[in-house]
Amino acid sequence: MSLSSIRFAGVHAGIKAAGALDLALIAADRPCAVAALYTQNRVQAAPVRLSQRRSARGLAQAIVVNSGNANACTGAAGMQAATRSCAQVAAALGIDPELVLVASTGVIGTPLPVARLEAAVPALVADLCADGWPRFAQAIMTTDRGPKTSQRTAHLDQQPLHVLGVGKGAGMYHPDMATTLAFLCIDAVVPASLLQAMLRRGADATFHRASVDGDTSTNDSLFLLATGDGVRIDPDDAAAVAVAEAAVTEVLEDLTKQMVADGEGAAHLVRLEIRGAPNDDEALQAARAVATSPLVKTALAGVDPNWGRIAMALGRSGAHFDPEQLAIRVEDIWLVRQGTGVGQAAEEAARVHMQRPEYTLHIDLGAGQGKTHYWMCDMGHEYIRINADYRS
Amino acid sequence: MSLSSIRFAGVHAGIKAAGALDLALIAADRPCAVAALYTQNRVQAAPVRLSQRRSARGLAQAIVVNSGNANACTGAAGMQAATRSCAQVAAALGIDPELVLVASTGVIGTPLPVARLEAAVPALVADLCADGWPRFAQAIMTTDRGPKTSQRTAHLDQQPLHVLGVGKGAGMYHPDMATTLAFLCIDAVVPASLLQAMLRRGADATFHRASVDGDTSTNDSLFLLATGDGVRIDPDDAAAVAVAEAAVTEVLEDLTKQMVADGEGAAHLVRLEIRGAPNDDEALQAARAVATSPLVKTALAGVDPNWGRIAMALGRSGAHFDPEQLAIRVEDIWLVRQGTGVGQAAEEAARVHMQRPEYTLHIDLGAGQGKTHYWMCDMGHEYIRINADYRS
Repeated sequence: MSLSSIRFAGVHAGIKAAGALDLALIAADRPCAVAALYTQNRVQAAPVRLSQRRSARGLAQAIVVNSGNANACTGAAGMQAATRSCAQVAAALGIDPELVLVASTGVIGTPLPVARLEAAVPALVADLCADGWPRFAQAIMTTDRGPKTSQRTAHLDQQPLHVLGVGKGAGMYHPDMATTLAFLCIDAVVPASLLQAMLRRGADATFHRASVDGDTSTNDSLFLLATGDGVRIDPDDAAAVAVAEAAVTEVLEDLTKQMVADGEGAAHLVRLEIRGAPNDDEALQAARAVATSPLVKTALAGVDPNWGRIAMALGRSGAHFDPEQLAIRVEDIWLVRQGTGVGQAAEEAARVHMQRPEYTLHIDLGAGQGKTHYWMCDMGHEYIRINADYRS
Repeated sequence: MSLSSIRFAGVHAGIKAAGALDLALIAADRPCAVAALYTQNRVQAAPVRLSQRRSARGLAQAIVVNSGNANACTGAAGMQAATRSCAQVAAALGIDPELVLVASTGVIGTPLPVARLEAAVPALVADLCADGWPRFAQAIMTTDRGPKTSQRTAHLDQQPLHVLGVGKGAGMYHPDMATTLAFLCIDAVVPASLLQAMLRRGADATFHRASVDGDTSTNDSLFLLATGDGVRIDPDDAAAVAVAEAAVTEVLEDLTKQMVADGEGAAHLVRLEIRGAPNDDEALQAARAVATSPLVKTALAGVDPNWGRIAMALGRSGAHFDPEQLAIRVEDIWLVRQGTGVGQAAEEAARVHMQRPEYTLHIDLGAGQGKTHYWMCDMGHEYIRINADYRS
């Protein structure tokens, strides 16, 4: 897929070692409507603060992204570096610097090597092309095992409506914010306020219901650009909004699943289906407690249907339920009914499902109509290897 | 140390494999004042529910403990098993079953092999002796690398005041409750209400400010028995209360440190000293976020002064502070001042401290007078090995 008026680039600027792509750019032919969600962490990287201010106007024409350095906790010099990067890109593109957003990902607390970044801007701009998004996806990776992209084509009034998404995930992935870096483009005419509402609802159902390690980055940013080409989405046309939002949400969901499946060291992507909570908020509390429990996550890594740990996590979640009404199943295999284990044979059957790279864990709290879904992953030796040795 | 009127025992009942001690007993010559704190998890094991009811009267004469099986999520049969265990012990000791408390630790969701436990009761009672607490300490272990005991002798009116404590720790260790199993005895005359107040204050400063993995067990129980021998602690005698409470708190602190140092797979016991928070509650929020962050814990395992992850955890803790006022040091080595890194040389110097089995990490949020301390540990490969393969 390529979008008529948006181009992508990815080059090596020398921020990462060994020639890896580490500098990326999205550029549009003209100013686009933009929506964005940023980390809720109180410690926000310079690029987050700068982009937040600029995207608030709902207008952007380019986003420059580097990996290998988060430009977080870097003081006034960090904000200068972020501003200068944008200015260089704006000059090379011949556009207003206020229309350039910026995102960074990588190690926190190390000064951004802004001279190297600036020296690479001409090559970066020269690399721009409509089919450049696979290189863009490569260039934003940190500990990701591979690039993450997704695309959908919907139709409105027989006109195609393309949505293209690129993301990076791995560690520090947890909700209450946009989580990780992700960039979506939709080739439609959408007012910025509608775009923001669509992005927020879409993220609520996807990015905000997923966790890799319960940690929240200083840099998480999620952008949605509308090219201003093609079909026009009128906020009053509920059917058109629904079609466009569904396409955006599907891309967000696909990226979410790719990110959690590629959680640092993860071998299993597990979808939690929680039901029977007193309300949806408590269902989400329950899901988060299970999804972030180190004891649950290590049991999943060991392909161990140790449902006692799930019961433990639910019990400390704050959700209200009667433990004697609890039911748990892996796919179609009941492990727990009315609070007690079904037995050894069920656990053996559950193991077959749990060996798979992707499966669903169903939890019924038996206390009401509240429900939610959530994506989590296991935590194995690779997580420790990656994170104990990250900077070494 | 031995206490005149309290005896301990530890035997093998066959709940654990391979002849390991797995059944333990504390018995007093006569009913003792008792204080207790139990898990705040909504899913409470049968022994917790039974002991909670019985200890509410402030009186107990024996506590029977098994390891290898938590007797949690075991339904009505689990409660029957707990009640029967107590009844057998009461019969063998010739005391009122209502004076027998019970605690269990081990795998959740597997029926307690109550016949084996009952068959071992005669041997258990025969094993009782005043010096039996090291065997008791062995018999309550699960994934602990070694037994955990502590003792203090204070003096009041020239009379010695002994406090003896035994605990077990390892995984599922997190506050908001008494945490793990621990048993303290003080050879003094203390009214039960004062004993409970002393235990609660002592635990607030120790057991409740420590985390191994952020998970909260279904079985955590902390008991404090007063023998009724020796010096009398009058609730109105503030000086005497302070002396007795200090001795109890020191034993609690010593056990806390042993438990966190022996956190599953931990190689480093780290004391957090948080200051500069808007208030003490937010200091505690900040401490908990750092102590439970997988990214911080794996960095500590890798002896990596990756303070950006600490800043990240503080930023998502909910505590209010200005990131540009943040200061972090390891022992006497400043890593961060005014929100930015001090530099590479400081990090190298910090590594020397971080290689030690025990060190202090100081965090100043620069936002007020709130402060707290907290114990945490690192998370390395051993944690995964232990927890991914626990039941295999």
